[in-house]
Amino acid sequence: MNKYTIGVSGFTGYSGVELLTILARHPHVEPVLLEHRADTQDKPVPRGHQGPRRIPCTGEAVSAAKLDAVLLATHQHVSMELAPVMLAAGAKVIDLSGAFRLRTVENYQRWYGEEHTQPALLAEAVYGLPEQNREQIRNARLIANPGCYPTAASLAIAPLVGLADLSAGIVCDAKSGVSGAGRKPTMKNAFCEVTENFSAYSALNHRHVPEVLMNTGLAEPQFSFTAQLIPCFRGILETIYFRALGRTATGILAAYEARYANEPFVRLYDHGGFPDLASVNHTNFCDIGFKFDAATGRGLIVTAIDNLVKGAAGQAVQNLNLILGLPETEGLL
Amino acid sequence: MNKYTIGVSGFTGYSGVELLTILARHPHVEPVLLEHRADTQDKPVPRGHQGPRRIPCTGEAVSAAKLDAVLLATHQHVSMELAPVMLAAGAKVIDLSGAFRLRTVENYQRWYGEEHTQPALLAEAVYGLPEQNREQIRNARLIANPGCYPTAASLAIAPLVGLADLSAGIVCDAKSGVSGAGRKPTMKNAFCEVTENFSAYSALNHRHVPEVLMNTGLAEPQFSFTAQLIPCFRGILETIYFRALGRTATGILAAYEARYANEPFVRLYDHGGFPDLASVNHTNFCDIGFKFDAATGRGLIVTAIDNLVKGAAGQAVQNLNLILGLPETEGLL
Amino acid sequence: MNKYTIGVSGFTGYSGVELLTILARHPHVEPVLLEHRADTQDKPVPRGHQGPRRIPCTGEAVSAAKLDAVLLATHQHVSMELAPVMLAAGAKVIDLSGAFRLRTVENYQRWYGEEHTQPALLAEAVYGLPEQNREQIRNARLIANPGCYPTAASLAIAPLVGLADLSAGIVCDAKSGVSGAGRKPTMKNAFCEVTENFSAYSALNHRHVPEVLMNTGLAEPQFSFTAQLIPCFRGILETIYFRALGRTATGILAAYEARYANEPFVRLYDHGGFPDLASVNHTNFCDIGFKFDAATGRGLIVTAIDNLVKGAAGQAVQNLNLILGLPETEGLL
Amino acid sequence: MNKYTIGVSGFTGYSGVELLTILARHPHVEPVLLEHRADTQDKPVPRGHQGPRRIPCTGEAVSAAKLDAVLLATHQHVSMELAPVMLAAGAKVIDLSGAFRLRTVENYQRWYGEEHTQPALLAEAVYGLPEQNREQIRNARLIANPGCYPTAASLAIAPLVGLADLSAGIVCDAKSGVSGAGRKPTMKNAFCEVTENFSAYSALNHRHVPEVLMNTGLAEPQFSFTAQLIPCFRGILETIYFRALGRTATGILAAYEARYANEPFVRLYDHGGFPDLASVNHTNFCDIGFKFDAATGRGLIVTAIDNLVKGAAGQAVQNLNLILGLPETEGLL
Repeated sequence: MNKYTIGVSGFTGYSGVELLTILARHPHVEPVLLEHRADTQDKPVPRGHQGPRRIPCTGEAVSAAKLDAVLLATHQHVSMELAPVMLAAGAKVIDLSGAFRLRTVENYQRWYGEEHTQPALLAEAVYGLPEQNREQIRNARLIANPGCYPTAASLAIAPLVGLADLSAGIVCDAKSGVSGAGRKPTMKNAFCEVTENFSAYSALNHRHVPEVLMNTGLAEPQFSFTAQLIPCFRGILETIYFRALGRTATGILAAYEARYANEPFVRLYDHGGFPDLASVNHTNFCDIGFKFDAATGRGLIVTAIDNLVKGAAGQAVQNLNLILGLPETEGLL
Repeated sequence: MNKYTIGVSGFTGYSGVELLTILARHPHVEPVLLEHRADTQDKPVPRGHQGPRRIPCTGEAVSAAKLDAVLLATHQHVSMELAPVMLAAGAKVIDLSGAFRLRTVENYQRWYGEEHTQPALLAEAVYGLPEQNREQIRNARLIANPGCYPTAASLAIAPLVGLADLSAGIVCDAKSGVSGAGRKPTMKNAFCEVTENFSAYSALNHRHVPEVLMNTGLAEPQFSFTAQLIPCFRGILETIYFRALGRTATGILAAYEARYANEPFVRLYDHGGFPDLASVNHTNFCDIGFKFDAATGRGLIVTAIDNLVKGAAGQAVQNLNLILGLPETEGLL
Repeated sequence: MNKYTIGVSGFTGYSGVELLTILARHPHVEPVLLEHRADTQDKPVPRGHQGPRRIPCTGEAVSAAKLDAVLLATHQHVSMELAPVMLAAGAKVIDLSGAFRLRTVENYQRWYGEEHTQPALLAEAVYGLPEQNREQIRNARLIANPGCYPTAASLAIAPLVGLADLSAGIVCDAKSGVSGAGRKPTMKNAFCEVTENFSAYSALNHRHVPEVLMNTGLAEPQFSFTAQLIPCFRGILETIYFRALGRTATGILAAYEARYANEPFVRLYDHGGFPDLASVNHTNFCDIGFKFDAATGRGLIVTAIDNLVKGAAGQAVQNLNLILGLPETEGLL
Repeated sequence: MNKYTIGVSGFTGYSGVELLTILARHPHVEPVLLEHRADTQDKPVPRGHQGPRRIPCTGEAVSAAKLDAVLLATHQHVSMELAPVMLAAGAKVIDLSGAFRLRTVENYQRWYGEEHTQPALLAEAVYGLPEQNREQIRNARLIANPGCYPTAASLAIAPLVGLADLSAGIVCDAKSGVSGAGRKPTMKNAFCEVTENFSAYSALNHRHVPEVLMNTGLAEPQFSFTAQLIPCFRGILETIYFRALGRTATGILAAYEARYANEPFVRLYDHGGFPDLASVNHTNFCDIGFKFDAATGRGLIVTAIDNLVKGAAGQAVQNLNLILGLPETEGLL
């Protein structure tokens, strides 16, 4: 089998590095680095180990190299610039930023606080959550890879919507490792500000909220979300609280099993068993455990993913496999 | 002013070490170590720096030394043994374990899964949350120092009870540094199991839950609590979710200000400002910030304490100051 | 190509888990878990993901399953028991413990402070450092996988021996992540004892010292070694100091290049460029950088490996590839 | 006793915050914040807890406020600007930067790679290592507070100089927590670059080297120094290797005891006992342990300080006590 040639833009960021790690083990893909001026080398590299070949991050170079697809691990502003260029150069595009996730310019404007410069592509983009949109993804030209928080939250909450008492609201208390904040140094991700610390941010108005609403059908007033920073490199754990009457633990587990029986990357736990970050880090799994007290109707779900894998690079490769017609799990197990 | 002589039992554990750190700076207290067989030295000690003087952890020794009070930083089983002995030896007792917090033997039996061996002392003990029981504490002989999670949760939730819609429930998503689990090595607090990890435990049935119910008047079905382990040494942060209709952020802040205006160790934040662990670590403060969306009725509180200070040793010294008739903040600012 | 069936004993320890991670991606190996009574499940496992098949850790079971080789990720005492049993059952053995590394019973007695119970196997075992003993390894029945510290130290120091002024001594200041201490909970590897801390242990008499002497030809008085604990999960970094007169940086680099030109898992850096743990973690590489001040003769080397990969499981698979006649890098890049 | 009024410039950096923590407990000092334009608030502050009073960081304001002394926790460039201004305003100055440590403009030029703008003050400044220069410090107008690495290295090495074989060189392998790199966010101190990592930098040419040479009398070719980053907030540990013939462990300990018998902040350990970071963090102690193998002449010292206390703010307050004529340990035990 010939190898597909896949460009990676933004390869020095944490998602970009993760993409290269995954693609290096993928049997049917040859990665190519798309070089920006910003990709300066900031650490010494071993002699004779320079990594994949590099071409300029331009439409001409991508076209000349006949790339089958391009993965954009770039800031949303850069993605809005590059996506049309790469599509015009004949490559399919999987974008890991928030640029193309929210479907409408109004929605984007509200949550990102800025105008969208590519409304046509925003309308065209397919939201790349395979467990939900698998068939559309196969035929897409432009895929918006989901946010890290919404990937876990959506997979964990979707089966709950028919079971819970939504009038009491759903609480999603989300915690993430620091790599989710990107690689650019700021006071917020400085070591001494994060280590031996834990902090909440973007309570109720995080820009990942609308993705969860879109994926689950929840209305905004029903959903309380807080993002929090764990002093670790990678991993997301979300503790999701709900209330339900007339349900049983057995019934709830059955609903999740029905929904995810054939999903290769969703794993369930017996009642009362919870995943932690170590359960999923460096894997493409989304793990879901829950506990329900039928007597009082209190319930909670604990879900975990690796924010850089199922929450970014791994899911991007899962989407890549789908658009290339490869087995969905290739390079990911 | 003469110094009070105060015994410390369990001085090699994390709360015990913290007690000694605080007492070393306290102008009116001379600490004495009460030596158990279990207090083996496990690290080298600098020459000529052996710490406070040591006496055996027995009633005779305590009586002979005329200790004014004894602080028990011991396991609940040891505390149940030592409390009557120390009281009989003429010392007031402040117990940092869970032995004397729950008022009734039934409650203790339910949450600790074992019988209480000192029912009379359990009935006598005063719950040592000064912001709630200040006057009773001043006259107590035996004080049950509150649990770490309930200290933060109770101070943060109490003013909310009259404001929130309790039928939607109150969610307390609690996170703690590892020192809360004690110093005895287990798989659960082993470095490699905790670092780069984050995990939930004791969901819905943590033994600190009844303290919060007792302190706030919430009924068990109204309260969902999960404890979680942060990969850091110290600190507790709790994210508390509520729903309320017909309230405003200004009104909520006013309720907290009214309640805590004269409390030296409770600090409030402007609407939308949250404390993190760094705000409170190595201090006796309980910090409380909140955010409320009046349009949808969604609200949350972020509260933080140092589990070893306001959640254990600092609060014990605050109680000690009260029973000795000293200024409540002595040694704690 | 048929798959080789390979048993793994001690699969719940950190090296054992790493072995399973590597073998899961190895195209020519099917791992089988050899189950002890000690391998109790201590964390919840996702439904339907039980891992490789399990057989008892006995000679009969290994013989019946026709295992091609057995990897022992066990304590040295268990390894001394299991190695003869597995060899008798027809499996080749790669032992990751210190049981078979030191060649003579006298040497073992001195450094491990106990008698060796399998002197014949000790004499037979081949020391599994492929960069040094590749040909012997191919034909071995029993391989002693090197210690983590000596793997890095030996590869970094060996080319230096002809260049440095040995009368001034070689200093190896070694630092390791906590997983090197194994998974059994002790006070020494408890989270709160390690985090925000850094400590030295086994100065001058660490039991890994004789391996370095054996591999480099250094005499004990020429070599000063200290082991130290970094508050992180994995990775070893060693800073090695030497003095040399009449040498140049160019000449030193040339000596290393000559020695390691064809080694797939040794990577060198330009003069003045150093690896860190992030350079090698989750890889089987040993990275070596150096700095030399010709004017004063002061030099130092910085070398790094992942203690669980090149320092344990990865090197074991490298050795496994050699004894199975597979490409040496299979499953490791 | 009246309180001395002491200005603090650079109070939002890590050393500055540590100064305020120490001064808040100092019975004879009232701190005043000297406000720069750069001291922007980057975190929410509890209502009603704004800290000490603030005045502008100008000569006029300092003069009007009659400050007794000013502590500069600022970058060396700012310190060179502020020191003459504050001296002219009648305040004594203790500078925590590297601006005034190296005595001559030539030395400064060589190690800092830039010109010194205050040569007269450089010549006048007294190096503030009390264990070495106590009497000069008492009478100084301008004190150069020592670097963090040199504080530990100088105290540990000074007694060794007459005992060791200097022709074999002294190796100082130094490790520091990240707060030593300051609070300005850079790629180097970003959380994800530091956590689960360990890296060496400035090998052989760190700008703290000349301070050690100055304090110990070692010649540069005799001294090999490497700085390394530990993934923790605070603390320095240095492992110092030497060779000596005709010495004994007893003799070496006696030499250290003779030198440090009356020093309140230097603590020694029995032969073979080493401090770790936890031994000294949040204290002003410099702890020194050692191990010596008389048979081979190999020796090593392990020394530890808190880089923010004895390595910066604590030592500054120790110097402040000396210039104010207060007991040297005031506020520091």
